Amino acid sequence: MDKTGIEKMLRPKSVAVIGASATPGKIGYTVIKNLLKDGYKGKIYPINQKESEILGLKCYPEIGQVPGEIDSAVMCVPAKVMAEVVEECGRKGVKGALVITSGFSEIGRKDLEDEVVRIARHYGMRILGPNIVGTLSNSEKFNGSFAPCLPLPGKNSLVTQSGALLIAMDMATYSRRIGYEKMISIGNMADVDFADLIEWFQDDEETSCVSLYIEGLRDGRRFIDVAKKSNKPIIALKSGVSAHGAAAAASHTGSLAGGAKVYSAAFKQAGVIQATDLDNLFYRGLTLSMQPPMKGDNFLIITNGGGNGVLATDAAERFGIPLKFAPDDVQAEMKKHMPEYGSAKNPVDMTGMAGNDWYYETVKFAIMNKWTDSVVVLYCETAITDPAEIAASIKRAVDDSGVKDKPITVSFVGGEKSDKAIGWMVENGIPAFFAPDTAVNAMAALREYAKLQENKKSDGAKTDEKAKKLALEVIAAARADGRTSLTEIEAKKVFELYGMPTTKIGLAKTEEEAVKLSKEIGYPIVMKIVSPDILHKSDAGGVKVNIKTEAEAREAYNTILKNAKAYKADANIHGIAVQEMAPWGTEVILGSVSDPSFGPTVMFGLGGIFVEVLKDVTFRVTPVSKAEAEEMVSEIRGAPILSGVRGEAPRDRKAIIETIIKYSSMIYDLMDEIAESDANPVLVYAQGEGLRVADARIILKKK
Amino acid sequence: MDKTGIEKMLRPKSVAVIGASATPGKIGYTVIKNLLKDGYKGKIYPINQKESEILGLKCYPEIGQVPGEIDSAVMCVPAKVMAEVVEECGRKGVKGALVITSGFSEIGRKDLEDEVVRIARHYGMRILGPNIVGTLSNSEKFNGSFAPCLPLPGKNSLVTQSGALLIAMDMATYSRRIGYEKMISIGNMADVDFADLIEWFQDDEETSCVSLYIEGLRDGRRFIDVAKKSNKPIIALKSGVSAHGAAAAASHTGSLAGGAKVYSAAFKQAGVIQATDLDNLFYRGLTLSMQPPMKGDNFLIITNGGGNGVLATDAAERFGIPLKFAPDDVQAEMKKHMPEYGSAKNPVDMTGMAGNDWYYETVKFAIMNKWTDSVVVLYCETAITDPAEIAASIKRAVDDSGVKDKPITVSFVGGEKSDKAIGWMVENGIPAFFAPDTAVNAMAALREYAKLQENKKSDGAKTDEKAKKLALEVIAAARADGRTSLTEIEAKKVFELYGMPTTKIGLAKTEEEAVKLSKEIGYPIVMKIVSPDILHKSDAGGVKVNIKTEAEAREAYNTILKNAKAYKADANIHGIAVQEMAPWGTEVILGSVSDPSFGPTVMFGLGGIFVEVLKDVTFRVTPVSKAEAEEMVSEIRGAPILSGVRGEAPRDRKAIIETIIKYSSMIYDLMDEIAESDANPVLVYAQGEGLRVADARIILKKK
Repeated sequence: MDKTGIEKMLRPKSVAVIGASATPGKIGYTVIKNLLKDGYKGKIYPINQKESEILGLKCYPEIGQVPGEIDSAVMCVPAKVMAEVVEECGRKGVKGALVITSGFSEIGRKDLEDEVVRIARHYGMRILGPNIVGTLSNSEKFNGSFAPCLPLPGKNSLVTQSGALLIAMDMATYSRRIGYEKMISIGNMADVDFADLIEWFQDDEETSCVSLYIEGLRDGRRFIDVAKKSNKPIIALKSGVSAHGAAAAASHTGSLAGGAKVYSAAFKQAGVIQATDLDNLFYRGLTLSMQPPMKGDNFLIITNGGGNGVLATDAAERFGIPLKFAPDDVQAEMKKHMPEYGSAKNPVDMTGMAGNDWYYETVKFAIMNKWTDSVVVLYCETAITDPAEIAASIKRAVDDSGVKDKPITVSFVGGEKSDKAIGWMVENGIPAFFAPDTAVNAMAALREYAKLQENKKSDGAKTDEKAKKLALEVIAAARADGRTSLTEIEAKKVFELYGMPTTKIGLAKTEEEAVKLSKEIGYPIVMKIVSPDILHKSDAGGVKVNIKTEAEAREAYNTILKNAKAYKADANIHGIAVQEMAPWGTEVILGSVSDPSFGPTVMFGLGGIFVEVLKDVTFRVTPVSKAEAEEMVSEIRGAPILSGVRGEAPRDRKAIIETIIKYSSMIYDLMDEIAESDANPVLVYAQGEGLRVADARIILKKK
Repeated sequence: MDKTGIEKMLRPKSVAVIGASATPGKIGYTVIKNLLKDGYKGKIYPINQKESEILGLKCYPEIGQVPGEIDSAVMCVPAKVMAEVVEECGRKGVKGALVITSGFSEIGRKDLEDEVVRIARHYGMRILGPNIVGTLSNSEKFNGSFAPCLPLPGKNSLVTQSGALLIAMDMATYSRRIGYEKMISIGNMADVDFADLIEWFQDDEETSCVSLYIEGLRDGRRFIDVAKKSNKPIIALKSGVSAHGAAAAASHTGSLAGGAKVYSAAFKQAGVIQATDLDNLFYRGLTLSMQPPMKGDNFLIITNGGGNGVLATDAAERFGIPLKFAPDDVQAEMKKHMPEYGSAKNPVDMTGMAGNDWYYETVKFAIMNKWTDSVVVLYCETAITDPAEIAASIKRAVDDSGVKDKPITVSFVGGEKSDKAIGWMVENGIPAFFAPDTAVNAMAALREYAKLQENKKSDGAKTDEKAKKLALEVIAAARADGRTSLTEIEAKKVFELYGMPTTKIGLAKTEEEAVKLSKEIGYPIVMKIVSPDILHKSDAGGVKVNIKTEAEAREAYNTILKNAKAYKADANIHGIAVQEMAPWGTEVILGSVSDPSFGPTVMFGLGGIFVEVLKDVTFRVTPVSKAEAEEMVSEIRGAPILSGVRGEAPRDRKAIIETIIKYSSMIYDLMDEIAESDANPVLVYAQGEGLRVADARIILKKK
């Protein structure tokens, strides 16, 4: 989409405030006051039909009467006249509008919102909002909002779906001493959404990290695509992770989906780092905005307090970057700057005797030596050291090392002096915090970023045009039959078309056909009723397994038919499926549901108790790349099962990964047709021996 | 133990500083300076052989020459003369000593430490330390330490095993504005340990919560006993939870134990609340020190920002206190204080329009109504409200409600004004924090406290004297045989003595005996080799199952014997165990290992993949009460298995609980004899049909 409108809106050279007011307390007054007070250098045109001047600025009755060009308009007029005003802006050539006004889709008036967007599109104008606080930019000194002040400056920019949080966080930048470059309230996202802003931020030199507070995404798929291409770290705090869980889902797979798991998977796929809470968003965002990614697994914790060091070590394990012992040569060097009873192992405990010089030497060596990928420096305030001097030593060590591609984070536990030192370090580009846990968590964010960057390189599955065409024919036939689900035979056909091996199956309409099919497939076989009216086949006595002879086949055929008729007299019976009885294998399941934000998703897990009792399943948004499929297979708790337990040979992991990718292609290609589907169970054999989809189910979308 | 010494040490009316110094920078100088500067009102006697006066106080060459009585001595003399000095103090009648000096067991000189304690005991004197920073008490204005100042006052007291953390946290009380009443450095715990101090704090009226920073406990069992009796909340931050994991453990059960899990279980059993990190210790301690427990599950979140409300809702689920919708009558009342588009459901969102009055009315009603057990109040700073006034409204609402037994916590997201309001609320008894997550986490601590109080009421298992006597005989016989493990037959005998049903088993020494036993037990049977030299019976071809006839029994007997001899020619073979082949049941396992801090522990889990792949096991320190056994059965991830899955009948849960208690008694009674043991598998049948220990193993302690 066109970025011009967003550029004009976020970096305007001139701005009109439509619905400007001379009455203090009114938003139309506050915006003008904020623009002036915070030093906006562009032209400001208040638009008001009654006033001739507001806060010393000349007023215009209509935007059309403003002499010069106008880049952006801040809208403070009531919702009911918004369409009209947007029309006027469009005619004037305004390319971006910040619609502060509320009273649109958030109270059920989506019609008003749609009208505004329709008009804006006509004029090639972009809309931020409606229902926003506005936007703030430190580099532009632009406070086009009713938030009280520009935030403390920083290199991190925030886009938030909660206006109240923007205002509160804006003020909190001063009390937390964690700055932001821009703060953008995104409101109802009638036009400009997260993806648009992420794209725009790619070229914003003032921003080195994009922080997001997300309640819900409309076009999750575009979000993933855009975020994946980002050359800057993106961190997201997703709220409402407990809400989706309540949504009742019809199918088995559906009941396990839950928005939170899908969002988490989508963020991973998009290369977006997650924040766990508001504090975490502040801390991690700050760190990502000022430090390089942590490119390997080795890091040193340097401390002057043993207790603190142990707490940080625990935290490292908790946050996924477990500590290792430093190699001997590193230990030997460390030993030079500590008393006899210190420890050079990692955490490096210089003891309470550590002063400025030891901190300087140790930190510098830690950064410069080959083994280390990053450094976490801890300091417990003591009576014999000065926090300001320790901070200066750390900074000097970093500078003198000359190393730019290894990150550092710091924790100072102490009083006012330590607090000041923390502030000083942050001002000087070193993320510093109170608790050791926070410093480690911040480092973990840099490690996550590096790992996510690696994963983003893997390509997604490709559309299989031929399979798609044939699958659509199978689906069309079922629809022609007035059905919204495929029979097992049809479903397996679709799976086969996408190259997934299924157990052999055929439909018998007579006893003789059943005998013939049984012979062709080969005993032992399984027979199952095929009827769109009988979904729970076993309950209806519609399944017989381990049929070994022709006599048994004949008996099974007749018994199943009789049972089915007894179960539901008027059932539409297609016949009886005669199916290969596959040898036993490890049961895994694949499933798919359509997420309201992200569209089709793939679920993978082990069968049986793993899925039923432990809900041990993992999700990805389609299409799933090879790297993602590999991750899925590795990240379930029951993963060791697939490596072979109790003397079993390892299962065919490669076949599983290939099948996930093929299944993902199927789901992706047919997303307009398939509402949900599963392969349950899929029987997986020993390495090299493949797998077999033993049962398949496809439910169609209602059309 | 005698509390007098501790009382004198922590609340001295007179104190001698032994090793007092006139040289600034020396600890013996700093302590005197701190006592004077921070306003200690008792008598201070510097002891120094050379000086006549230090900081205006008269010096004495020896403690024996001080005219008056001395309650406590602060020891700053070198380790090598400590014993001598303690002797002098003892003779003088000093009852408590704070031994600041280091250079004892922490550097391998346990001998020096033991000597000091030996002498102290002789004189009925208690020792805190050695290797401590000292102790600080706000109510006594006593800074008997080299920490720079008394902490910001509070009702919470800290005992810490890290001196560096004490100093840093002491200063941090001012920057964090979270106060402490006492801060005690516990050092090497040569004499006074955590349990002693917890006991002492019971009578300290100034302390309403005891906070602990623990690296390791020596006598974990006494800690549990004492903590269990505490009438004040105790919160512990345990560090080093990732370290124990590295300790290689010989047995299967052992490899799953891990100190962290045992500590966690022990804290639960002791009624001790856990903190996850340093910040959390501050926040939770503050809250526990000023608010009552949360006695039910219902709480309201009240907010002026939707986003904040959702974040708090997510946090509530994460921290184990999921939110429920408020009942209709509560919602109706809430509706009165919000605009049309607000939400009364819970979180109660009054929207950004909420001012002082709405906060006052809503909070007051929330506290007073019957349904609510607690209230979490959130506020996002806005341009139209004053944080100080909102804070005052909340405080007034709490006061006017007259309700004293329902807790409240608060979050203010905002700038300097909000920060000040947070400080004001804390000073006025309301725990207030920045992030909504923190306010919810703090409330969760109050809920945990209430739940732990309930659990503490349940009694532990009792010693079974008769079983113990007979079991010791079985063990004595094995020891007489030169063995350190029991055979399966012997182990099952011990389990049977403690009332646990085992599969029938007998030892056959000849083919004829095997046939006779098989007939008595009843076919089908299992045969296994019995030899202390063959631990892995299956590997040796020493197991035959499903033996159905006499002929098969004869063949099995001979085959097993032949295999065993082939496997290990010189094996000492006791004979062949003939065992009932128990019907299939759900496999669970019981195990026990001896923890270095807590002694014997019981492990419980489901068998098979649950233990082998998922490590889904839970621990308790013995003896295990009924309530604890119930918790164990409920808290494993695989718990639903026991309720019956896939149409199975529920398993006999009651039998499992009884067996855990009996097993716990056995382990507890025989703790001097048994190093580790397990019952694996235990076959559990349908409700009412009990269970059977199918295999049992007991390894004895080396003596």
